[in-house]
Parts: sequence; C-alpha cells; structure tokens
Amino acid sequence: MKHNFGAGPCILPAKVLDQAADAVRDFNGIGLSILEISHRTPEFEAVINETQDLVRSLLGVPADYSVLFLQGGASTQFSMLAMNFLQQGKKAAYLDSGFFSLKAIKEALFFGEVNVIASSKDKKYDYVPVGYQIPADAAYFHYCSNNTIEGTEMFSHPATAVPVICDMSSDIFSRVINVADFDLIYAGAQKNMGPAGMTLVLIKNSLLENLGDEIASMSDYRIYRDNNSMFNTPPVFSIYVAMLNLRWLKEKGGVAKQEIENIAKSTLLYQEIDRNTLFYGLSNPVDRSRMNVTFKMYDQELEAAFLDFAVSNGIVGIKGFPTAGGFRVSLYNALPISSVEVLVKSMQDFEAKLLNQKVSLENKVRV
Amino acid sequence: MKHNFGAGPCILPAKVLDQAADAVRDFNGIGLSILEISHRTPEFEAVINETQDLVRSLLGVPADYSVLFLQGGASTQFSMLAMNFLQQGKKAAYLDSGFFSLKAIKEALFFGEVNVIASSKDKKYDYVPVGYQIPADAAYFHYCSNNTIEGTEMFSHPATAVPVICDMSSDIFSRVINVADFDLIYAGAQKNMGPAGMTLVLIKNSLLENLGDEIASMSDYRIYRDNNSMFNTPPVFSIYVAMLNLRWLKEKGGVAKQEIENIAKSTLLYQEIDRNTLFYGLSNPVDRSRMNVTFKMYDQELEAAFLDFAVSNGIVGIKGFPTAGGFRVSLYNALPISSVEVLVKSMQDFEAKLLNQKVSLENKVRV
Repeated sequence: MKHNFGAGPCILPAKVLDQAADAVRDFNGIGLSILEISHRTPEFEAVINETQDLVRSLLGVPADYSVLFLQGGASTQFSMLAMNFLQQGKKAAYLDSGFFSLKAIKEALFFGEVNVIASSKDKKYDYVPVGYQIPADAAYFHYCSNNTIEGTEMFSHPATAVPVICDMSSDIFSRVINVADFDLIYAGAQKNMGPAGMTLVLIKNSLLENLGDEIASMSDYRIYRDNNSMFNTPPVFSIYVAMLNLRWLKEKGGVAKQEIENIAKSTLLYQEIDRNTLFYGLSNPVDRSRMNVTFKMYDQELEAAFLDFAVSNGIVGIKGFPTAGGFRVSLYNALPISSVEVLVKSMQDFEAKLLNQKVSLENKVRV
Repeated sequence: MKHNFGAGPCILPAKVLDQAADAVRDFNGIGLSILEISHRTPEFEAVINETQDLVRSLLGVPADYSVLFLQGGASTQFSMLAMNFLQQGKKAAYLDSGFFSLKAIKEALFFGEVNVIASSKDKKYDYVPVGYQIPADAAYFHYCSNNTIEGTEMFSHPATAVPVICDMSSDIFSRVINVADFDLIYAGAQKNMGPAGMTLVLIKNSLLENLGDEIASMSDYRIYRDNNSMFNTPPVFSIYVAMLNLRWLKEKGGVAKQEIENIAKSTLLYQEIDRNTLFYGLSNPVDRSRMNVTFKMYDQELEAAFLDFAVSNGIVGIKGFPTAGGFRVSLYNALPISSVEVLVKSMQDFEAKLLNQKVSLENKVRV
C-alpha cells in the first residue's frame, strides 16, 4: 500500500476511485461510459446539479452566490478575475504571500494596476504578512489562503468593505469557512475536490451586476452563471468524480468533522518535526499550513537517504518543490491519519538508526 | 448493447474504456490511480510525450509545428486565437459555414475587425460556401472544417498566402490531412480524440514569432509551447485517455485506414436516406459530412415514433440539435460499421412496418 503525500493532483478516497472506474466502464448501468455521454443528457444534468448542491451544503454557500465549474485551473482565474473586475482607472489590492500569489499579481498586471499591500518575499514567504491596510478605493482585495509550496495558511483576513477574492485551491473543503466573508472564491479541483481539469468558482451575484460588455464569452463569469456552467462542453469526468468525492466527504460527516481530522493529522506531524533532532519546520509556527507541511533536515546530506527510507515504507510524494528543497508533505482530506503515523514512525526510525550507527561507530573507534 | 451515435462527448473504443478504468484503480501497477499522480512525475511526462508523438505520427505533423494540449474547449480557442493573432489595425477573414463558425466570429469581434468573406446562413447553413476570395491583407483566414450541427464538411480550402486557422474539432483524426496546409489547427478532444476537458492545438512555430507582450500567460500559445503544455496543472486524465485512444487508432492502421472505414459508414447511411421513402437528407449532397449525418422525415409527425423504434433497437444519441430538429447521426471513429447497419436496418424495418399498416388499413377499408 502506498501512502500518497503528493501536493496535487493528489490522493483521492479508494471508494471514489472504485466508483469512478466503474462509471468509466458503465455509468449507472445505462450501457454507456461516463466518458461517452453528452453533457446535454438528463443523466449528466443530474450529475452537475448534485455536484452544485453538494458544494452548497458542504460549504454553506448563501443563496445569492452562484456555484460555477470552469476549466483552465486556478491559473486561468488569475487573469480572468482581473479581466472581469479590474476596471480602467482602478487599482486592485493584492497580498503577496507566496509563489502562487505572485503569479496572480503578474497576470492581473496585464489588465490594470496592482497595489501589493504587503509581501513576505523578504523571507522566502515563510510567514504570512500581518498589519497591512486594505485601501478603501481598491477594486478588490486578492489573497491566497494556503500557500502550497511554502507551507503557510491564512485562516482569516482583515475586515474590509472592498470585495474580497480568494484563491482557495489547496485548502477548500479542508476547514469551515464563512462564504459570506468573500465575494469570489476560486479553487483548482485537484486537491480536496477531485481530479485535475476543473476549477470551482463561488461568486456573489451582485459582483456581476456592473460588468462591461467587452469580455469574451469564455472569460465572462456571467456566461457560466446563465448557462449552468454548460455554455460549451464542460469537463464531464472531472465534475463527475468531484461529485463522488464530495458525496464521500458528506457521508464522512462534512467539512467540520474533516477539519478536526486535518488538525489532528497536521499536529501529529508538526509535533514530530519539532521533537525530532534531525528535522526542522520551514514556516513560521503561527502560520503553519494544515495542508502542506514543509521541513528540512539539519544535515542536508541526509535528505536523499531519508527519502529512500521513506519510499521503502511506501511513502510517496514528499519531495519539496524544486525551488524550495527539503520536504513537502501534503495532508489532503483523503489522506488517512494512519499514513501520517507511518511517516512519523519513519522519521523516528530513521533518527534511531542514525543514533545506533553513531553509537556503533563510536564503539568501533573505542575498540 | 448500445449503438452510440451521440454528437460528443461521444463513443470511445471499449478497449480504451477498459484500460482507462483499470488506470483509475491502479496506473501501470504503481499502486496509485492516474487521478492521484502529479503531472510532474516521470510517469505522467511519459504519457504527455507519447500523446504528442502519437499526434505527430498519426497526422504527419511537420517538425516545425508544436503540439499543444490546452483546456477550455474549442470555444476558448475562438477568443484566444484572436487575442494572439488579430493585431490592431488588421482584419481577419472568416468563413461563416455554421453554428460554431458564427460563434468563432462573435468571439473574434471582442479583439478586432472581422471580414466575413462568405456565408451560407441564407439557407440555414445546409451547404458550404464556394467561390470566395481570401483578401491578401487579412491577418488570417479562419474556417471550421466540419459543421457538427448542420452536417456539412469541407475537405479543402482555397490556396492562400494568408495564415490558415482551422477548427477541426469534429473531424480531426477522421481523414488524412496535410498539416502543412494550415498554420494553426485546433480541436476539442471530445469527438475522435478522447474525453471532454482537453483541446489539441497544432501550431506552426513561425506564427508565434511576432506576437506582442500583452497576452496573459494562460492565453499565450508560447507559454504552452515553452512549458510542454505544463505551465500549470494539465487535464491529466483527459490526456491519458487521449493517449490510449490514439494508440488504438494507430494499432488499427492509422488515419488513412480509418478514413476508408468512415467513408464506408457514411456512404451506407446516406444511401439508405436517399433510398428510403420516409427520410431525406438535410445538407447539400456534395457537402455531406462523414462525421455528422443530418436528416428528417417527410412526415414530421412520425419522427417521435421512429426515435422510439430506434431506441428499442439499442440506438442512442440520434436526436437532432434542438434548433435543427430531425435527426443527427454521428459516425465518429470508434463507432463500428455494424452499428450503422443496425440503424439502416431500423430505417428499413420502420418503413416496412408503416407500409404494412397502410396495406392492412386499406384492406380493412376495402372489407
């Protein structure tokens, strides 16, 4: 058995994978695969509607918000949201808290002015900036709630009258949120929602009231809202597997229960990182992400050996992002706490092994 | 067994569906699903590279063309290509041959001027315009090679020095093409390539040489070319299934052999439409599509009964597009000729049944 700590596309529940595989062969016993039915069939309409309902009930989405399914990933949202909401003569306020928030800033600059109101770039994004002001005249305030590469997470944002837009790609459905605190939430599916190829957008309808007419259809949120996300062929399979996955989450007890589990999983791992004499955490303790745990070894030369040791215990996907180095362990919803226990035990065993080697080496020298 | 004549997402080979289902459970025996591996793994890099190679070899793509995989469908290409190639002060030449060509025109208008050089809208797009000139100063010439809704197909275009951009969503891989005749070909995957959620783009590299710097990353073809279509997370599963499907096509003998089969399938059906006293074809005989066959019944009130009769024979997906009415029968690569035979026999049986009813009614009246 593999313990899949990959950062995304990532682990999905075994039950969901079984159901998805069955539907690739025969969807609901209709004699056709989920891959070969039209999105205009009643069968698929039921899928997209159930997926929307699950999103609404799991996150408590208010009635005046639309639930949309788009393609292109969160990266497409970086430009699309600016295209829709960064009107001429306006400036958008961005928080620069990591690799992906900086990407969002770069794309917004194609469409208008950006005011970076705070940044943690000075310390390689190992903390989340605080104490900043959101200018009252900003077109919107944008931030990324979880920085996958750096391993920091923001559980709240300053109160503001400005529309709040949040990239929740890597922590949506992992903890309880108050959707009404946001005007637009977007998230690439491939962490806690489903397979790659789909992006969830929750949008307050009033935000769409005063948009211009110069936005091409596939970049216009109104088109998705007015066509139940089916202006053109949607990513049928990605939506279907997201439905299965959200059903699984609901059966498990929903987001509140999942959050308790996610706290337990991340606490277990951070405690071991702090206790173990070989490892140290990379992010500011108060900003530690529950989804992506980043750490290194004091002796960097041991990292390859630990990686091998981990692999021999069935652990995969823990290598850090190339520019960050070290390790990044992702603890998404589908990852059971038993996998974290295996990792923690591996860290302990590796420490003990090293200690024994050292002792036996010292003994040898003594003899 | 179902005979799936759906217009897309459409029938895929049973072998491909079996392999895809297996990979959803366990990809290549690595103990992980194809849905839960990172696109940055060597395993997935092998998939995307093989898919590219298959596209190159099946279509004979010249070396100076890039093979790209994007998201958003052909609809996103409608605006993206104009964003890239419709420079200020320039005009693009468009052929208006159907529902989707008109959509492409509407999206291009967000970015620049469009010259509709010919249109068949006057006759509900039941023919393909001929005898038009492509202005030498056009930024590019755009057309759609197969009109899915109307059932017409274009097998060539006038010679021109202007860059040619073609939407081949519904007939790519169905017939031999000379890629060098085009500067950019795009195609939503969900017909002859694979499941929905991915779009193939073939692009002559020289077309990308003089682009401006004002294009957002996810709309910039150069970004996809320079990052092997992995600037961000690609639609992993859609690409994987496309690879399986293109392997299947190659094993079968490739595009040339498939084209012979497609000619046989469409000829069989058109012959029956022309022979049968109940049915008539909707598109101009010389422009008939091999992929999408459109027809109606002389007595429109019989259409619901024929549809029921067809369904009772396992036939699905033949209802015409809502605005077109009648029937649309799609004969994509994965559809075996035996399915066409079942449909033709259903048309014959339905005709015979009606004739018998008529005879027995006449006998009754006589008695």
